[in-house]
Amino acid sequence: MTVNLKNFFNPKVKVSKMGEFQELQSIDGLQISAVSADLYGDGRDDITLFYFHDGANFASVYTTSKVTSASINWNLKIKRHFVKALFVNTKNANTFTGIKGAQGLKEVANTLAKSLTLKSSQSPKGVTDVIKVTDLVFASTGVIGEEFPHTKIKNRIPELVKKLRLEQNKFVWFKAANAIMTTDTRPKLAYEECKIGTKLIKISGIAKGSGMIAPNMATMLGFIFTDANIPSVFLKSILKKVIGTTFNSITVDGDTSTNDMVAIFATGKAKNSKIYNILDPKLQDFEKALHRLSLNLAKQIVSDGEGAKKFITINVVGARSTNMAKNVGFSVANSPLFKTAIAGEDPNWGRIVMAVGKSGENIVANKVQVKIGNHIVAENSAVSKTYKEKDLKEYMQWDSIDIEINLNLGAGSFTVYTCDFTKDYVDINADYRN
Amino acid sequence: MTVNLKNFFNPKVKVSKMGEFQELQSIDGLQISAVSADLYGDGRDDITLFYFHDGANFASVYTTSKVTSASINWNLKIKRHFVKALFVNTKNANTFTGIKGAQGLKEVANTLAKSLTLKSSQSPKGVTDVIKVTDLVFASTGVIGEEFPHTKIKNRIPELVKKLRLEQNKFVWFKAANAIMTTDTRPKLAYEECKIGTKLIKISGIAKGSGMIAPNMATMLGFIFTDANIPSVFLKSILKKVIGTTFNSITVDGDTSTNDMVAIFATGKAKNSKIYNILDPKLQDFEKALHRLSLNLAKQIVSDGEGAKKFITINVVGARSTNMAKNVGFSVANSPLFKTAIAGEDPNWGRIVMAVGKSGENIVANKVQVKIGNHIVAENSAVSKTYKEKDLKEYMQWDSIDIEINLNLGAGSFTVYTCDFTKDYVDINADYRN
Repeated sequence: MTVNLKNFFNPKVKVSKMGEFQELQSIDGLQISAVSADLYGDGRDDITLFYFHDGANFASVYTTSKVTSASINWNLKIKRHFVKALFVNTKNANTFTGIKGAQGLKEVANTLAKSLTLKSSQSPKGVTDVIKVTDLVFASTGVIGEEFPHTKIKNRIPELVKKLRLEQNKFVWFKAANAIMTTDTRPKLAYEECKIGTKLIKISGIAKGSGMIAPNMATMLGFIFTDANIPSVFLKSILKKVIGTTFNSITVDGDTSTNDMVAIFATGKAKNSKIYNILDPKLQDFEKALHRLSLNLAKQIVSDGEGAKKFITINVVGARSTNMAKNVGFSVANSPLFKTAIAGEDPNWGRIVMAVGKSGENIVANKVQVKIGNHIVAENSAVSKTYKEKDLKEYMQWDSIDIEINLNLGAGSFTVYTCDFTKDYVDINADYRN
Repeated sequence: MTVNLKNFFNPKVKVSKMGEFQELQSIDGLQISAVSADLYGDGRDDITLFYFHDGANFASVYTTSKVTSASINWNLKIKRHFVKALFVNTKNANTFTGIKGAQGLKEVANTLAKSLTLKSSQSPKGVTDVIKVTDLVFASTGVIGEEFPHTKIKNRIPELVKKLRLEQNKFVWFKAANAIMTTDTRPKLAYEECKIGTKLIKISGIAKGSGMIAPNMATMLGFIFTDANIPSVFLKSILKKVIGTTFNSITVDGDTSTNDMVAIFATGKAKNSKIYNILDPKLQDFEKALHRLSLNLAKQIVSDGEGAKKFITINVVGARSTNMAKNVGFSVANSPLFKTAIAGEDPNWGRIVMAVGKSGENIVANKVQVKIGNHIVAENSAVSKTYKEKDLKEYMQWDSIDIEINLNLGAGSFTVYTCDFTKDYVDINADYRN
């Protein structure tokens, strides 16, 4: 992307539609650390710990893939939704690693529980909090099928726990967001504030992912932390609702990962009045803020799509239903021919029409209107009378390309975000393991 | 592909599994010509005519896209299944060209009908055969949405008709197969013989297509000519059956074209005994021959996939149904991450497992066994105990890669053919219109 990296530390610079970077605030009740377990062999941070010293309500959404990582299998077994820590490793997906992978994770969990219990016993409170393995949530991302390096990880857990700090300034967040990256070229961070009743609520979120991104959250990790006091069951409802039009409305290559996970942790430290009902109007502001934050992170992921040079917004309107609009949008967004045309700065709207046609939806060809930017390019089954190749060619040089497809059949609409398909994508992915 | 082009003229050289090139024979009752209408501006042949002077039974299958070309719309209106000619143009898809595109095609049809009627009146038979526009079948391939160059085409029709010759040697077939190409790097041709009763039957086929190839025949033109005497309605049944496991079992990029068409024309000149029943055992040999020919052409298309360097066979077995096997096969074959790994000669079987998982099919992860070549790479939810990276790396350097995925759930199977995803694909498609 042509996003200026130096702007990433300047919260005033808005990176247009591509997702903004904001300065993250400390979330009371949370401690963070990240160190290197030398999984990459180059000393970069690769294990990250988020510790809730007084616990946090927790809700999570996972990949729809039928092949899932040991960490997701672990989380799915957690019955309680009040947890003590989230542990993340990169480089190794711990997927298709068999019984050994599951056992390795268990050993890591045991070591982590012991280390955190020890830390708790040394706290000024003087009360030892016994942390159990069932208080722990895990996430992994990286290569599928390679042996899980549990020994290397276990050896570094004491240091990881030792480095936990109560305050998170922007550099702490930045370090954590970097530590969870794989092929990402930049960290993804977002921050929002809202009110629940009279209390100010903070929400800080980080994410990773640049390949295997597709609907239903392909190789995407998203971790959201808030000091709101909201029961897990309501967190889950709100998260599920928000994800549909944010993390699940993006695609890089149509591939779906085995390790996807978006989770929210609420420490309750903001001490807002208790919520008894999901319909409580006090939650509306929170839901909106969570939506903004999630959409922002989702857009940052697309902007950082492997090899991506352009951010593409595909807005499908006039569909018979939301679902129809969504299918048409993803049919275009996942078309390699469309994506390579955008990479070539070619206003080849014929490929948009092709992708609309192959969506499987019952569209009516002569009703379809296609706009690129503000230019109507096709309508009445033909090129638009106002079509000017020169204007379009100019527009195609922009970093952010807007496509509007009006099916003129109803009131359903959906917006999909994606990126172009460049030679760099092939380079990155042909060589990923080397 | 690393297929040696000089072998293309040597019918004895078998191009392994990638589809073979055979010397095509003349089909009695058919005349062929190809000339340049200067649609590309470089003098290459771009319009091709197949004329059946005594008519031919005809059956055809078209794209499933909801956006279709003017030529497909034309063919769909043909009520009779006994036709006189097939006309093919490249460079321009005549799709999303509105009323003007349809009118342009009509003008071409009128000119062609007149020219062929005139030719007929000059034949030694002394009987004028009045050719109507409804006796004509059309196919177009090329850029979507550009104005159909009907004037340029019309002007060259007299010359095209004049050049028709009764005999087709291998050079005539080669010229025709070249004339229908777009981004193809080589012509696709296949030949088969069989018997119906005591009569020898010849089948010659040509095809084009290298991008926008996906199930249901994306940007694929396939034309098959035979001297068999088979009613159109039976031709249609056999063609539909054969296509499922041949032209519809290949994919290059998952994109589906607006112009796909596979058609068969039978002149009846072999004078085999009449067929009254689709279950007539005399048809079995013909069906097998048509299947071999179609699979051969389909494989040639995949081998010539845009930018392709490797031919990939994905054999899914042990599925609960054929459909399940097919979905899993295409999920892998259309995964950009899998295809780029193959391009990088990386035995990254994790991406195969990922693509199996995302197929949407209800697979059981710990039952899945994956083989690359003869090497078992994954089983019991983990890397195989016999896995040797060195052996795999060697195998990945081959031009033709075999993947077997055993779901171990039932007896359903399906084979999908595809190619790798290289930087050249992006190059070709980012720049297609320039």
